Amino acid sequence: MKPIRKQDFPVDQVRRFMEPGPIVLVSSAWKGEANIMTMGWHMVMEFSPSLIGCYIWEQNYSREMIRRSRECVINIPTVDLAKTVVEIGNCSGSEVDKFTQFGLTAVAGEMVKAPLIAECFANLECRVADTAMVRKYNLFVLEVVKAHAPKSPKYPKTIHYRGDGQFMVAGDALNLRRYFRPEML
Amino acid sequence: MKPIRKQDFPVDQVRRFMEPGPIVLVSSAWKGEANIMTMGWHMVMEFSPSLIGCYIWEQNYSREMIRRSRECVINIPTVDLAKTVVEIGNCSGSEVDKFTQFGLTAVAGEMVKAPLIAECFANLECRVADTAMVRKYNLFVLEVVKAHAPKSPKYPKTIHYRGDGQFMVAGDALNLRRYFRPEML
Repeated sequence: MKPIRKQDFPVDQVRRFMEPGPIVLVSSAWKGEANIMTMGWHMVMEFSPSLIGCYIWEQNYSREMIRRSRECVINIPTVDLAKTVVEIGNCSGSEVDKFTQFGLTAVAGEMVKAPLIAECFANLECRVADTAMVRKYNLFVLEVVKAHAPKSPKYPKTIHYRGDGQFMVAGDALNLRRYFRPEML
Repeated sequence: MKPIRKQDFPVDQVRRFMEPGPIVLVSSAWKGEANIMTMGWHMVMEFSPSLIGCYIWEQNYSREMIRRSRECVINIPTVDLAKTVVEIGNCSGSEVDKFTQFGLTAVAGEMVKAPLIAECFANLECRVADTAMVRKYNLFVLEVVKAHAPKSPKYPKTIHYRGDGQFMVAGDALNLRRYFRPEML
């Protein structure tokens, strides 16, 4: 799996990747240490500012790194990284340097200090926008401040976790533009 | 499209349908009126209680019905209902009786007064659990109190909205159980 060459991508259009609910890799950095966690529970909450709600619980070693640095990167892997995605979820950043362990390439971000994962299809640089719901719901509200995606394919083969070790791979594209009232697009 | 025969489904396992981010139809009832809205922004927030976070904004006619009745049903449509899903989003419950207009079958719930949509693959009866984030984020926290799904197929051909009239249809299943540490399943 080679690093993927990317372009700037409009932050208010990240729903293209996030809305269909893919498993993502969240990278973070704090005090000279970097880490990666898998994340399956997230939702788009606003276009502009570009807000993403994320469930990050106490057992995630990344949680304190994200809370303290107030930054992270949401990296969107494709099916060829599926085994790595599972293995990243199997181990803890308290014991393993995951970039080294899994041969992933850390790339510097433009807006945040957390590293981007070059092998992932898209990278969303995020700042923590609201932590008011963390205590009750483990819900972090992130603002995507910079996004990177390759020119093609437009829609990657993302993987979507269904629990119990079962994933769904993104399937056929279905263009229903013709049925939409123009103002609903 | 015929109504689908269903069985009880464990509420703490609804991630099977919700986590991969499908477009859903939310049905509600208030003062003798029933309505249906399309919804694309939602996330699993907890297994037990079975919590789902949902973005329902002020322009949705259903919002006040859900807020007042404190109930709704999340219905999960499959690809054969794709055109109907778009058309439901094109019109407002203030002008149209959507069950009649789209020939959908309302079925009585067991735990809520909002009607289930028989033609949808799965039906999740929900109570509103928390409205504290509605004012700031249009975020309703729902608790799934009863779920109905057919015995097969185990994984339906859900549709996932990417914006701009483009959907992704649920694709191949990928079993990666063998890579998981048992306690991570």
